Amino acid sequence: VPRIDSAGYRLRIEGMVAEPQELSYAQLGNAYPRSTAPATLQCAGNRRSEHHRVKPVGGVLWDWAAIGNGEWTGPRLGDLLQKARVASGARYVWFEGLDEPVVKGEKTRFGASIPLEKALSPETLVALEMNGRPLTPEHGFPARTLVPGYIGARSVKWVHRIVVSDRPTDNYFSARDYKMFPPDVSAEKAKWEEPEPLLESAVNSAICTPRPGEQIPAGRLRVQGYALAPGRRSIARVEVSSDQGVSWVGARLLDSEAPFAWRFWEAELSLRPGPQTLWARATDSEGGTQPKTAPWNFKGYLYNGWHQVSVQVL
Amino acid sequence: VPRIDSAGYRLRIEGMVAEPQELSYAQLGNAYPRSTAPATLQCAGNRRSEHHRVKPVGGVLWDWAAIGNGEWTGPRLGDLLQKARVASGARYVWFEGLDEPVVKGEKTRFGASIPLEKALSPETLVALEMNGRPLTPEHGFPARTLVPGYIGARSVKWVHRIVVSDRPTDNYFSARDYKMFPPDVSAEKAKWEEPEPLLESAVNSAICTPRPGEQIPAGRLRVQGYALAPGRRSIARVEVSSDQGVSWVGARLLDSEAPFAWRFWEAELSLRPGPQTLWARATDSEGGTQPKTAPWNFKGYLYNGWHQVSVQVL
Repeated sequence: VPRIDSAGYRLRIEGMVAEPQELSYAQLGNAYPRSTAPATLQCAGNRRSEHHRVKPVGGVLWDWAAIGNGEWTGPRLGDLLQKARVASGARYVWFEGLDEPVVKGEKTRFGASIPLEKALSPETLVALEMNGRPLTPEHGFPARTLVPGYIGARSVKWVHRIVVSDRPTDNYFSARDYKMFPPDVSAEKAKWEEPEPLLESAVNSAICTPRPGEQIPAGRLRVQGYALAPGRRSIARVEVSSDQGVSWVGARLLDSEAPFAWRFWEAELSLRPGPQTLWARATDSEGGTQPKTAPWNFKGYLYNGWHQVSVQVL
Repeated sequence: VPRIDSAGYRLRIEGMVAEPQELSYAQLGNAYPRSTAPATLQCAGNRRSEHHRVKPVGGVLWDWAAIGNGEWTGPRLGDLLQKARVASGARYVWFEGLDEPVVKGEKTRFGASIPLEKALSPETLVALEMNGRPLTPEHGFPARTLVPGYIGARSVKWVHRIVVSDRPTDNYFSARDYKMFPPDVSAEKAKWEEPEPLLESAVNSAICTPRPGEQIPAGRLRVQGYALAPGRRSIARVEVSSDQGVSWVGARLLDSEAPFAWRFWEAELSLRPGPQTLWARATDSEGGTQPKTAPWNFKGYLYNGWHQVSVQVL
């Protein structure tokens, strides 16, 4: 985690712009309207452990908690780019952070790029605050990009450089990582230039209560979890089953919906004694729904199969 | 002041849009990013009393305090209009409030319209909060439009209807009021259809300390006041004079600047005993400056001559 002094910090905006910018922390906070909205960030590897059960994959074996929701505040990236006056022909916006990850023994920079249209979209921010307070160093102080609806890796912490370009970045973490390959491609055979970089998340949900292996008294059980729709879609419904999908019970969606934010849900089930498996699946506002199982890929990305939690009913 | 229950409140967006909207208070607060920025609202009649000293004018005889600054929060009007999908050919956006002012013995609605481009501009909001709290009834609860840089009358309180159109509104307060006529036109001879409705404010400043008629000990005096630049311009300098403009002293600009917000300033003057008159004038970032006196108009709008305060130095 880099510790950055906000006094010396500058965010440069350059590349295909008529008026390159160099903005101080104070300018980012005062010279533009501050936009505030909730957004859920989900790692591309959320639920990777479920890919791993099918066949081993590389990377951290996340369960279903590589995801989090915050209320983010900062200037819109679109306002900053409008001020810099984007040149015609521009199609991508690159981000570069101040951290120095080591790749194959060499220090490099973490980076990402997103399509210009997404960069200009209202939800995309240079975030300065999370939940009403300045970012902590771990969350990217002084500033991070926030790209709601995209995999977490595109929200670049400690961002110090934004480059407008006619092509995607060749940064390692965009060109050589965070790509998804078909099930028959191994790490050794991967042609990294072929797939597009991962951008949008897929519709997903998980059961958070009960937890796997929990011992539960027979009778009525409250099942709770989260669901997240892709892009501007919302969650239309969440269903749970305790009989391997023979029958499904609709869950109640809790709280109010907000674009790009997860939705909590809960459902009541009656369980008989014995080993039981609970399933959950979500459907979004355009009818997109989770597959029973998600296609395996050697990097273990975007697992969004029906979530299963096995418990012991006493 | 209408007292409006937020539970039954709806904001309609209609006219030249593909998808008319009807938004509840909760939807305005949750379904769009909340934009927060300071903005100064100034009545078109601020400093009207100075027109009145030249020749009587109608309307409230405001001194230089028909102006105020707040930090405003709410969805951007541009985001709401984007969702409603504005039709091609649209050029204006009308606002209508729920209050019922009486004009010539008949109840009517207060309304205004602004060019579509300004409606889509980042600073223009449907404001729900002032200074971090829900609007009070006096400030337009549940929602008001906020059009920074325009005369206050275009920021319509208790707004319940927004209409996208190919022409300006014919609402009384836009078509028959808040227009500026040349000095030789009287109320009786005014052809109301001729001038365009007033929109942008002019560069302005005023001395707030000392107050007119104050008795002040001889020696050094701290003079303080506000200055406001039009549109996205900022205040470049404020000057004060105690010798009828023979010499001018530059004021210090205080705090940090923010677009559409006033700027406080202060200057030190040395005053000799006797009656003295202090003058102040501001210049904006594009060289626009206040005139020595502003052209008289029978409605008494947009007074922005050099501000003069006479005091008694002991």
